[in-house]
Amino acid sequence: MNLETILQGRSSWVGSARDPGPLVSSRIRLARNLNGRFFPSWAEDAERSRIWKELSEFLPGLDVLHPAAAVEMSELADIDKEILFERHLISRDHLSKGEGSGFVVREDEQVSALVNEEDHFRLQAMLPGLNLSGAWELVDALDNQIEERVTYAFSPRLGYLTACPSNVGTGMRASVMLHLPGLVLLNEMGPIIKGMGKIGLAVRGLKGEGTEANGHLFQISNQITLGQNEADMVSTLEQIVLEVVEHETNARERLMQDQEMLVRDQAGRAFGILSSAHLMQSKEALDLLSNLRLGIDLGILPGLEGLNVDELLLLTQPAHLQKIEGKPLKPKQRDSARATLIRDALARAGKPGRKPRT
Amino acid sequence: MNLETILQGRSSWVGSARDPGPLVSSRIRLARNLNGRFFPSWAEDAERSRIWKELSEFLPGLDVLHPAAAVEMSELADIDKEILFERHLISRDHLSKGEGSGFVVREDEQVSALVNEEDHFRLQAMLPGLNLSGAWELVDALDNQIEERVTYAFSPRLGYLTACPSNVGTGMRASVMLHLPGLVLLNEMGPIIKGMGKIGLAVRGLKGEGTEANGHLFQISNQITLGQNEADMVSTLEQIVLEVVEHETNARERLMQDQEMLVRDQAGRAFGILSSAHLMQSKEALDLLSNLRLGIDLGILPGLEGLNVDELLLLTQPAHLQKIEGKPLKPKQRDSARATLIRDALARAGKPGRKPRT
Repeated sequence: MNLETILQGRSSWVGSARDPGPLVSSRIRLARNLNGRFFPSWAEDAERSRIWKELSEFLPGLDVLHPAAAVEMSELADIDKEILFERHLISRDHLSKGEGSGFVVREDEQVSALVNEEDHFRLQAMLPGLNLSGAWELVDALDNQIEERVTYAFSPRLGYLTACPSNVGTGMRASVMLHLPGLVLLNEMGPIIKGMGKIGLAVRGLKGEGTEANGHLFQISNQITLGQNEADMVSTLEQIVLEVVEHETNARERLMQDQEMLVRDQAGRAFGILSSAHLMQSKEALDLLSNLRLGIDLGILPGLEGLNVDELLLLTQPAHLQKIEGKPLKPKQRDSARATLIRDALARAGKPGRKPRT
Repeated sequence: MNLETILQGRSSWVGSARDPGPLVSSRIRLARNLNGRFFPSWAEDAERSRIWKELSEFLPGLDVLHPAAAVEMSELADIDKEILFERHLISRDHLSKGEGSGFVVREDEQVSALVNEEDHFRLQAMLPGLNLSGAWELVDALDNQIEERVTYAFSPRLGYLTACPSNVGTGMRASVMLHLPGLVLLNEMGPIIKGMGKIGLAVRGLKGEGTEANGHLFQISNQITLGQNEADMVSTLEQIVLEVVEHETNARERLMQDQEMLVRDQAGRAFGILSSAHLMQSKEALDLLSNLRLGIDLGILPGLEGLNVDELLLLTQPAHLQKIEGKPLKPKQRDSARATLIRDALARAGKPGRKPRT
C-alpha cells in the first residue's frame, strides 16, 4: 500500500452523511518514549535516524496497523505534508520535520503513529462520532503491540515519561470534536468553556491549541495526564461530552422555537451562497458549511441529506484543493477551486425543497 | 376606473424583462400655476379646496389622461399614499398633504398630474428605458390640453412662474434613471458626477434629492429651467445619457476582461442569496437585485432572462409588500414577506444554468 491511496482516499474517521449531529469525531493519542534513549529534540541527527530505522521496520507489520504506509518526513513533498496535517494525521510540529522523523498510518487512517515528533512515539486513533472507547481500544492495542518489541521509558511513580512534563503519566490526550452552532448562536459557549476548565478539560478550536472556533467546531480534551487511569478518563470525558450535546440539542430547540425564521434564513443563505458562489475563502466556507450542517441536521434543508458536509470541510482545505487540482494554486485560484468543488457537491446532492433522489 | 386598479396593477413605466440594460426609465415633470391665484402654500384651506374642485372636475376628462383616476389626498389611507410614492406617482412632499390636494393619474401610470403640491400643477410623464422625447410629447400634450381650460401664471420675460424660483422658466425637470454597476465597481462614478455638475446636470440616488445611490441606481436630471427651450434641453440630456451608457458598457467590458471571476461570483451570490434567504431588508434586496440585474444583462445568469428585476425592485418596497399581504406588517414581517416574494419570483423564472423555458 502506498501513501497516494491515503492522500486521495476518503478519511474513514469522517462520519457518514446521514447523521451530521453535534458529534463529529473522537481522537486519542498516547505519548511514548524508548527507554534509555535521548528524547528526539535532545538526540543527534544520526540517533534520530537510527530510531526511525528501527521503528519503521516493524511498525507497518503490526496487526493493528495493517495495511499501513510508513513514510519518512524527508520523502514527502510539502503539499503532501500539508494534506496529512489537514487530515489530522500529523501534528503542526511534525510539518517541519525531515530526516529521522516519520509516520506510519493504517490505510483507513483510523490508527497511526508519529515517530520522533516531540516524543519517540505519538500513537493515535481517530473515529467518527463519539467513540472514545473504540478509539481507546485501537490505540491501546497499538500501544501493547509496540511494547512487545521495545521497552518504554516508564517510572513506577510517575508513569510514562515524556519530553514535555505536561504529558507525563498516562501520556494520553483524548478529545472529541463537536459542532455547536446552537450554543454559539445563543451566546452560551462562554460559561461552558469556563466550566470545562474547572474540571480539567480544555475547549479549543478546529486545529487545536490557540485556534479560534471557526465553523462552530470545538475540541474538548483532557488536560490532566497524571493520577487517573486511561479508561476512567475516557469514560468521564464521554459523559461530559454527552452533557454538552444535551445543552446543544436544547439550544437548537429554543432557537427553532424562538427564532425559527432566523435559523431558516441562515441555513437558506448558506445553501444559496455555497451553491452559487464562484470565489470562496477558507473561513467563509467553514462558516457557511457549518450553517449548512446545522440546517441539514434540523431538517430544514430537505433533499441535502445525502451531502457529507464533514468531508467537504476536509476537502476544501488549501492542500487538499491543490492535490485535487493536481497543481500548486495561488490563493485566488484556491478560492475558485474551493467554490467550484462545493458548487458541484451541492448540485450532485440535489436541491433543498425537493425530495432526495431514490 | 378606480385607484385600486392602479395600486394593484403593473406600472407600465417599468421596462420589460428581456432588456435590463443600463437604461431604466425616463421621466419629465412640468411645474405650472394658475394665473391670479395664490400658490398652494400661501393659499387658505378653502381656496386650495376650491382649486382642487375646479381642476379635478375636468382633468380626468382630458384625452391624454384617459382613462384616469382622480383622488383627493384626504381620501387615501397612509399605505396607499406610500404605494403611490414608491411608484413615483406622487412626491415625498405630497405624502403629507390632505384636503385640497390630490392627483389624477392615467390607468397605465405613464401620465399624471399632482394638484396643489408645491405648485398648482405638477404634470408628469414616465416611460420605460430612455425615451425622454416620448415623455416630452405626453407631458406637452397634457400641458396643452390643460391650457385650453385655464390660464397659467406666465411672464413673457421669465416664462412659467413657480412657487420655488429654481423652477421658473420652463418649469421642467427631465430625468433618466440609470443602472450603473460597472462604473460603481470600477470607482468611476465620482468624476462623472462632478462633470455632470459642471454642465448643469444633477446626479442623484433612487429616491431623488439627498438619497444615496443604493442598488447602483442613479437619476440624471437637468438643474436649469431658464434660458433653454424644453425640446433642446431634452435632446441634450438624451445625448449625455447615451454617453454615460457608453461609459457603463465600456466599464462592464473591462470588468469581464479583468475580473470575470469576481463578476460571476457576485452575480452567482446574488442569485444564491435571493433564491434562498428567508429574511431580507430593503437595502440588501436592492443591492442584490442590482447585482442580479447586472448578471442577467451580462448573460452570466442564463435561464433568468424572463425575470423582471425592475418590477421586483418596485414590489419589494415596504408599502407594496403590505398591500400584497393585505395587512400592516412590522419590519421583521416585511423582511420575511420580501424574501418570500423574491424567492417565489426566482423559482418561477427558473434556475440559472438551465435553458429558459420555451
